[in-house]
Amino acid sequence: MRPFVFVNLAMSADGKLSTIERRQIKISGNDDFSRVDMIKSDADAIMVGIGTVLADNPSLTVKSPDNIAKRKNKGLDQNPLRIVIDSNAKTPPDADILHKGEGPRIIAVSDKAPQEKIEALNEYADIFVGGEEKVDLETLMEALSEYGVKTLMVEGGGTLIWSLFKSGLVDEIYTCVGNCIIGGENAPTPVDGEGFIKEDEFPKLELLSLKKIDDGALMRWKVVKDKKH
Amino acid sequence: MRPFVFVNLAMSADGKLSTIERRQIKISGNDDFSRVDMIKSDADAIMVGIGTVLADNPSLTVKSPDNIAKRKNKGLDQNPLRIVIDSNAKTPPDADILHKGEGPRIIAVSDKAPQEKIEALNEYADIFVGGEEKVDLETLMEALSEYGVKTLMVEGGGTLIWSLFKSGLVDEIYTCVGNCIIGGENAPTPVDGEGFIKEDEFPKLELLSLKKIDDGALMRWKVVKDKKH
Repeated sequence: MRPFVFVNLAMSADGKLSTIERRQIKISGNDDFSRVDMIKSDADAIMVGIGTVLADNPSLTVKSPDNIAKRKNKGLDQNPLRIVIDSNAKTPPDADILHKGEGPRIIAVSDKAPQEKIEALNEYADIFVGGEEKVDLETLMEALSEYGVKTLMVEGGGTLIWSLFKSGLVDEIYTCVGNCIIGGENAPTPVDGEGFIKEDEFPKLELLSLKKIDDGALMRWKVVKDKKH
Repeated sequence: MRPFVFVNLAMSADGKLSTIERRQIKISGNDDFSRVDMIKSDADAIMVGIGTVLADNPSLTVKSPDNIAKRKNKGLDQNPLRIVIDSNAKTPPDADILHKGEGPRIIAVSDKAPQEKIEALNEYADIFVGGEEKVDLETLMEALSEYGVKTLMVEGGGTLIWSLFKSGLVDEIYTCVGNCIIGGENAPTPVDGEGFIKEDEFPKLELLSLKKIDDGALMRWKVVKDKKH
């Protein structure tokens, strides 16, 4: 058993998440911002990789007072469970994700994460330990399922999303395509890592919906064929 | 004066043109194939970079007999003028683009291209020489305009498209987004090169149309703000 996992991302018209300097860029507009806040608010948990924490220092909190009120009315925490995939426990103890907003956090680390760093983070978050060198995502998913997480939103970055696709752990992906060109052969993309080599390994998608949003396009894709589907 | 320049490309849902091995991949389907053949047939010229010639050995010919017949009825050559941007004259003299199909070709080289290679290519193509180390694209565009080229289609790859965007030489871009994930931080993307750094440098686009095609999506973007617009 594992949660329903969906990825949400915004990329430029040429498929970049950011510039080669990995500065955070506003790619989508207000309508997409509201959509993302809504699906985040509806999720049981939200996950990012350590690269995103270090580059953007996101809080991953629900922003709209209406969405927060809806969660409170349902007896939920203000924010979904926030999870960082952080094999070496590099999350800074003063990271916004650990301090802004109410609600539980999990830092997922591997066996090789230094014990003193784990202890420092454990003041602010629960710690999941699993995987020799890298966090074992499949075991983590099982643990999240037991914890009561039914829907999990993944916000990036490209290395985490690659690991999830490689393990066959993605069910849907929302892609917002913004109206700009960023360029750069070393700029971060939605799915980085090693990449698939053979065409029969490529995860195959079904386009569930396509519409204009802000000055760009929004695609919702279902994963119909990968290692696990 | 320069031609109207439009880029046409197909990328995976995660913004890749190909795998990290740069093998040619079928990303779009038959409807997109027909669309591309039609716009190619309607163009006065079609351009690729040397990387694409070396990786894919494309002929860049018009494929559909109907489209060829239409060109012939208009008194045109079977194929649009085919142009390779090839600063160092590395196009193999037996490349398909030089031998398959009727119609003129231009190999555009820089001042540093070896004379013996230029001479070998000149058996099959006209040679444009301009630019110290790299082909001077602006001068080439002026020359093409004088040659009678009013519309120019660019098929890739990402390095050439980057150079064109950097110089403010793109008017429109068609992006077909296919229903697969390729991944790979080193996989080729639609716009590679150094990339833009500051947000006010990013070319800004206007979404002219958005529709489903085959099992994916087709976007047509107009460049509304860049160095030259």
